[in-house]
Amino acid sequence: MDAATAVQADGAQVLRMLRGAVAQRGLGQLADKLAEAERYAASDLAACAEDFARVRVDEAGPVGPSANHLVSLGGKRLRPLCVALSARTGSGFGAAGRHVAVAAEFVHSATLLHDDVVDVGDSRRGAPTARVVYGNAASIFAGDWLLVAALRHVRMAGLPGLFDSLLGTLEAMIGAESLQLHSRGNLAADRATYLRIADGKTASLFAWCCAGGARAGGADDAQAAALGAYGQKLGLAFQLVDDVLDYGGRPEETGKALFTDLREGKPTFPLLVALERRPQLVRLLEPLLHGEDVPGLHADVATQVVESGALEETRRFAAEQAEGAIAQLSILNDSAARTALETLAYAVVHRFA
Amino acid sequence: MDAATAVQADGAQVLRMLRGAVAQRGLGQLADKLAEAERYAASDLAACAEDFARVRVDEAGPVGPSANHLVSLGGKRLRPLCVALSARTGSGFGAAGRHVAVAAEFVHSATLLHDDVVDVGDSRRGAPTARVVYGNAASIFAGDWLLVAALRHVRMAGLPGLFDSLLGTLEAMIGAESLQLHSRGNLAADRATYLRIADGKTASLFAWCCAGGARAGGADDAQAAALGAYGQKLGLAFQLVDDVLDYGGRPEETGKALFTDLREGKPTFPLLVALERRPQLVRLLEPLLHGEDVPGLHADVATQVVESGALEETRRFAAEQAEGAIAQLSILNDSAARTALETLAYAVVHRFA
Repeated sequence: MDAATAVQADGAQVLRMLRGAVAQRGLGQLADKLAEAERYAASDLAACAEDFARVRVDEAGPVGPSANHLVSLGGKRLRPLCVALSARTGSGFGAAGRHVAVAAEFVHSATLLHDDVVDVGDSRRGAPTARVVYGNAASIFAGDWLLVAALRHVRMAGLPGLFDSLLGTLEAMIGAESLQLHSRGNLAADRATYLRIADGKTASLFAWCCAGGARAGGADDAQAAALGAYGQKLGLAFQLVDDVLDYGGRPEETGKALFTDLREGKPTFPLLVALERRPQLVRLLEPLLHGEDVPGLHADVATQVVESGALEETRRFAAEQAEGAIAQLSILNDSAARTALETLAYAVVHRFA
Repeated sequence: MDAATAVQADGAQVLRMLRGAVAQRGLGQLADKLAEAERYAASDLAACAEDFARVRVDEAGPVGPSANHLVSLGGKRLRPLCVALSARTGSGFGAAGRHVAVAAEFVHSATLLHDDVVDVGDSRRGAPTARVVYGNAASIFAGDWLLVAALRHVRMAGLPGLFDSLLGTLEAMIGAESLQLHSRGNLAADRATYLRIADGKTASLFAWCCAGGARAGGADDAQAAALGAYGQKLGLAFQLVDDVLDYGGRPEETGKALFTDLREGKPTFPLLVALERRPQLVRLLEPLLHGEDVPGLHADVATQVVESGALEETRRFAAEQAEGAIAQLSILNDSAARTALETLAYAVVHRFA
């Protein structure tokens, strides 16, 4: 399979996977719409394939291979998809849009490379992390490299305002990482703090993708703002479901071990809800906060979280975000791309990986 | 001492220190010229003090303090000084120049924060590293933050071409880090490889500082190119002397432990020269390359390097670079700033810290 085909498959992959998930749950109509969106995704993301396959550092050494390792593993390519669909609500997904899409994926990849060093992550996308294969140093510098490559692509897109808004997004992302470090192991972290972290860490980049895609498709200020707000809410929904999957996902589908967030002491929405409902859960968590390794404890905590109904509440909250995201699209003309964005919002809530 | 005073002191510090060093060596005339340059440095770097003191991340947590920890320790502020003096060879050091100077210092600080994680560095500028005080995660994200802050300042400078040339500089720096990782522990690394690493890692940012300062002072293409070439050679001279100080510096002056590069298996110029002159030195180095800790071995290697005359050859090569740097300035009109840049090039070679 050559690089273009690999990425084409990646592009459709998230939607095919989502389609499988909703079909299993008897949501036939949603599945049909996703099939339609898949056709977009396949062609648009194939257009980015060459850039994804061409992460090349001028000098020898492990930094280029380290960046390539992560980018070529594919992942869901959800951010480029958001750029492409947003651009298609306007005049279409052309050269400027592709630069925005590639930049978004590179920024996301850069954060993963740094996160995996920070969190001592061993596996991602079902493969050993770049950190494990090429070392921490290569992983840090590869993240730096992808960030610079992303900035290059935004420059090439040449869309007014987009560069500075990306700097603002990066500031929001790093601020959120800071707040997350601050809140690590803090069981008293409240919903407001959680939302600030999720908004900065995850939603801000989705918002930039959708607003940037809109600009690439010739949107006016109001349309770009609406798509930006869609992206912000979609991103929050995505993060909430990510939190759920930490307790209830299937590692063979998510490519991530269970209880990773829990192990790292990160406040997640299901845990906050479970603690609200079952305050005595604090006592069970105490050893985790002191870094003690009690066999079976993560599974015990997860059982309590599940039994408290926190996962359902989290999915419900995510569904509200998705509804809110879709409501933002009302100012746009009807189009297949708008329908695809609506479908994507539902699908993000129903995903299992 | 308030922040402005602290940075004012920093600004003059490198030159005062250099002046002390050259006075001790009987270079009285050079010392007088440095005193003149000090007056510039004090006022120009005081102008950047507010920005240095205002590294603030929007959210709580250790990322802002981690960035501040490093930036507020001061260091030599050599890069902002290069920007200021280069701008002063033209119309002067104004608002645009200050943005370039602050950006340069932030980029340099960002690389140090990431390097200290990569190299597990414990002490820098005579204090524990941010990594030690705030953790690896905060140090990585603080580096990311300072990089974004640097980009913001270059945007604010509003000088055509400067932003893209900084991206090119960042690419050169990361490429050099990759090559350095590739060459780690490779005793057969040749001079060409060493020069590629030093050019990318160190000289490229000095070149950007001087060309950027020139642009801020209204230089034309030829003047900016000449100052860029000056910076490139000055940076290489600086790196060569840095290598010498790893063998012969006084830790209480350099703020760095001896033999750090040697311990990290980094190819340095004196070691390359010593190996050319004493091939049997390879055998002594073998245990170091296998990570073995043989008591006294670093000191033994250092003795051999010193006895081989490699430090003198390295200083001589650095002096050639400084001469080459100064030759680049010939197209500029005579000015106190040009004299200060000439003096700075000599001083970099004669420094002991």
